[in-house]
Amino acid sequence: MNPVSQPPHISPTPALYLIPVNLSDAPLQSVLPQYNLHLVRQLRYFIVENVRTARRFLKACDRSIDIDQITFFELNTHTDPAAVPSYLEPLRGGEPVGVMSEAGCPAVADPGALAVAEAQRLGLKVVPLIGPSSILMGLMGSGFNGQGFTFHGYLPIEEGARLARIRELEADTQRTGRTQIFIETPYRNNKMVDFLARTLHPTTMLCVASGITDPQRESILTRTAAAWRTARYDYSKIPTIFLIGKN
Amino acid sequence: MNPVSQPPHISPTPALYLIPVNLSDAPLQSVLPQYNLHLVRQLRYFIVENVRTARRFLKACDRSIDIDQITFFELNTHTDPAAVPSYLEPLRGGEPVGVMSEAGCPAVADPGALAVAEAQRLGLKVVPLIGPSSILMGLMGSGFNGQGFTFHGYLPIEEGARLARIRELEADTQRTGRTQIFIETPYRNNKMVDFLARTLHPTTMLCVASGITDPQRESILTRTAAAWRTARYDYSKIPTIFLIGKN
Repeated sequence: MNPVSQPPHISPTPALYLIPVNLSDAPLQSVLPQYNLHLVRQLRYFIVENVRTARRFLKACDRSIDIDQITFFELNTHTDPAAVPSYLEPLRGGEPVGVMSEAGCPAVADPGALAVAEAQRLGLKVVPLIGPSSILMGLMGSGFNGQGFTFHGYLPIEEGARLARIRELEADTQRTGRTQIFIETPYRNNKMVDFLARTLHPTTMLCVASGITDPQRESILTRTAAAWRTARYDYSKIPTIFLIGKN
Repeated sequence: MNPVSQPPHISPTPALYLIPVNLSDAPLQSVLPQYNLHLVRQLRYFIVENVRTARRFLKACDRSIDIDQITFFELNTHTDPAAVPSYLEPLRGGEPVGVMSEAGCPAVADPGALAVAEAQRLGLKVVPLIGPSSILMGLMGSGFNGQGFTFHGYLPIEEGARLARIRELEADTQRTGRTQIFIETPYRNNKMVDFLARTLHPTTMLCVASGITDPQRESILTRTAAAWRTARYDYSKIPTIFLIGKN
């Protein structure tokens, strides 16, 4: 047996552990450090965006995990923020607690940040672990400037407001060199590429980073808006990140 | 032997692999997926920010790696950008090529992005791997809004310009809720905390994320500017990320 695959028989330091989960069906050892898998096996309390996804992830980490011994606290857009302090009770009592979102790194674009903010307020230790982030991996793969970049989340849905925002982002990139990063609801990805290709200046560079970590579908392509106009693509329903930038 | 620890005897797909390296002395299996270590052993060409650091990293991945069989292309601030296309010759010939920076994820805040941009121009496949990023981990651990954030790199050095920029960032956070992320030359970290504590509005939240992934020194603390004013700290010479945000 490889010693690395043996869980160390020491309890983890009491802390709020921010545990990334997979973004795709890639094998877990392709996307997570071995240490994360060890740590996860030793935790008995998790704050999770979705209990079903969390159970599935834990079983994928280690089939022998006894899910019934685990307490899940659900923290998502339906959760009353007033409940969050009670989720940290085990940690206040000295028990390590994990935080997991539906996909990727928790406490970035999901309600897990509320648990982290509360832990910080209480002076409790917070430890982020390493895992896949489509924002960061899209930025790496784009070839764009990473010395300055902004993540915007979703753009406005209404067409006029969306157009105005895209023009604003393009102008900011021209002026500051900053890379602009945003996302879209996956079933509208093709519409977004089409809209960007038509509205951006033909020489503006657009990167479409899709299916990040997916062994079959990952594709990170940087082209001018003009080249996207005539390109063939189908990003429908594949999680995708859009980047406007300079290189 | 654990099958996971055996290198798969298939050649990796020809691509430009963006290979994160460690940020601290933490064991590599704590910070990198097993897959990265396998992949690295199979590459014969690397574009690196610093050859000495790259050799040390490869030896840490696998002592049996024969460094003399490896071709390193150095790409840093001293490199003539005109040399970059020649670094991609092996990839154009079907050989996978790795990119590594001095620390953390390559092609973000280092010249590796030039190689990625050139690969994108040539239509060559680019594959980012997973590893530690102090920007992302600082954001996760801060508890701040991750739905919108900007990384600014370094702030201006001149005190008046620095003050103006900090005021601007603080106002942007107040207005948009966006998290502002920036760095400082490590030996000036304490001065930066002091400056921020004195110039930010007392209720503005400041996170200092220091020694990310370092088993002994990692510390991620979010407090009001007022609380930082009276806090005791020493971040001198420890790589540190600063975040202003809302929670």
